[in-house]
Amino acid sequence: MTFTVRPIEEKDKQEWLDMWNGKGSYLEFYSSLGVVTPEATENTLKRFFDPNEPVYCVVAVNNETGKLIGFANYLTHRNTWTIEDSLYLNDLFVREDSRLHGVGRALIEKVYSEGDRLNCKKVYWSTQFENHRAQLLYTKVGVKTGFLTYRKP
Amino acid sequence: MTFTVRPIEEKDKQEWLDMWNGKGSYLEFYSSLGVVTPEATENTLKRFFDPNEPVYCVVAVNNETGKLIGFANYLTHRNTWTIEDSLYLNDLFVREDSRLHGVGRALIEKVYSEGDRLNCKKVYWSTQFENHRAQLLYTKVGVKTGFLTYRKP
Amino acid sequence: MTFTVRPIEEKDKQEWLDMWNGKGSYLEFYSSLGVVTPEATENTLKRFFDPNEPVYCVVAVNNETGKLIGFANYLTHRNTWTIEDSLYLNDLFVREDSRLHGVGRALIEKVYSEGDRLNCKKVYWSTQFENHRAQLLYTKVGVKTGFLTYRKP
Amino acid sequence: MTFTVRPIEEKDKQEWLDMWNGKGSYLEFYSSLGVVTPEATENTLKRFFDPNEPVYCVVAVNNETGKLIGFANYLTHRNTWTIEDSLYLNDLFVREDSRLHGVGRALIEKVYSEGDRLNCKKVYWSTQFENHRAQLLYTKVGVKTGFLTYRKP
Repeated sequence: MTFTVRPIEEKDKQEWLDMWNGKGSYLEFYSSLGVVTPEATENTLKRFFDPNEPVYCVVAVNNETGKLIGFANYLTHRNTWTIEDSLYLNDLFVREDSRLHGVGRALIEKVYSEGDRLNCKKVYWSTQFENHRAQLLYTKVGVKTGFLTYRKP
Repeated sequence: MTFTVRPIEEKDKQEWLDMWNGKGSYLEFYSSLGVVTPEATENTLKRFFDPNEPVYCVVAVNNETGKLIGFANYLTHRNTWTIEDSLYLNDLFVREDSRLHGVGRALIEKVYSEGDRLNCKKVYWSTQFENHRAQLLYTKVGVKTGFLTYRKP
Repeated sequence: MTFTVRPIEEKDKQEWLDMWNGKGSYLEFYSSLGVVTPEATENTLKRFFDPNEPVYCVVAVNNETGKLIGFANYLTHRNTWTIEDSLYLNDLFVREDSRLHGVGRALIEKVYSEGDRLNCKKVYWSTQFENHRAQLLYTKVGVKTGFLTYRKP
Repeated sequence: MTFTVRPIEEKDKQEWLDMWNGKGSYLEFYSSLGVVTPEATENTLKRFFDPNEPVYCVVAVNNETGKLIGFANYLTHRNTWTIEDSLYLNDLFVREDSRLHGVGRALIEKVYSEGDRLNCKKVYWSTQFENHRAQLLYTKVGVKTGFLTYRKP
């Protein structure tokens, strides 16, 4: 299998939605289908195409079938330690039948180059302590920062 | 000791700077005095007072001496899961001689109410795995999310 | 307050029991009063005084009152990596009203010297991920090994 | 591939040694070839066959080739919370060319049944925080205890 990573296009909307909240989707994996409202999903999709919004998406496309097999959603935001913004990789997903082919790694590397393009010094993301499958990849392409995240209850 | 938590004011700049990168300061604690450039520090201070910037600061003031004893710097940013922004508590500091009086807790609670004012569903922050002193407080006022942070090397 | 750390003696039994499973005790802290049976407690106490058992206890005594204020229970066992046994510090406790006086540290240091006496190359112990108060001490006197413990369900 | 798990036998010694400290071995994985002395290795092997030693080993054998493809070394020791001993799984290894066939799981399950035979209430082991490959298995067959291990420096 060969694949290409490129920015999301208008024609990708339905396939992105399938991976976002369909069967075997990203939100299903996080047991969060009921957490993200339809309005929020629609809003996020719209923001990808709005040049005034610092919210972005790249997708991985199977070169043979032309089908979407993964995505990375990311955004930039202020940081008090730097003049430059930071880039946060908010969501990363690869369809189950397309895993172990380097798609996740390629998506992260594309996000790294986006960090350069958007002039972000820091590119970062989070993963659950228990998600060992993801961390097998992350320890290869990234660095564990030694930080834990707390939130308002 | 009694104290008050309020938004930073122009007259606080020098005292904020002392806590940010002076002797016994926040950046000294993180061994990062050489990491944050003077331009970045100046920029961050300016952003606190710029209504077009989503970067904020509240300070704790000792009621007897009128001196600043702590600060919380925070910012808001997009989130792909919600229409509302998230609030990230970027920096929290209490002067060593003013600790164990509830200043850190009061600063976090002020940031929580700022989260309401700024219409942010999620208020969150990070701490080093090894910072047990901070976590003694955080486990009381917040919830560990079970997420670890990775970054681009 | 000054105190002395020494091996448990027969006359200490009742006071050790109070710290083990009485009010404000070690097992109460771990919500395990119902987990350790009276037979197991009696057995452990007996083993401390049995020269054929590799199970030991040292106690901390308040020099003014003569009362016990803490204990460390430990044992030795085989290790496949060394000819010498390892020493496992099974339980460590300091009465709440005697904390922050160096009692925990002194008990651990006594256990270290016991490791020398018993010819153990490795002296180790465990603590809950969430017990930040204990870890404030442990990061000073010991080294985090980077190992997590799993068990049979 | 089918395989059998059984107690180590005298004839297995050389093959066990190959997996313990040969090329691609267990100790090589832990960068510990220089840590475990030849005397300690010999001693451990001897203890497996000594009925007076609470040190044990089971091996996995490829049914087609008759070759050893994995081992589990374990030992029992006192525990202050129970009358019964605990069983500690000290070492677990599967040859790289025999992984992803359930060998690790079968070895752990054999150790569980050994825990029953040896009357041990608690069967446990440790793994490095960073060893995500191992933890993918451990989260299926075991339970993370939430304990971290510290040691004497």
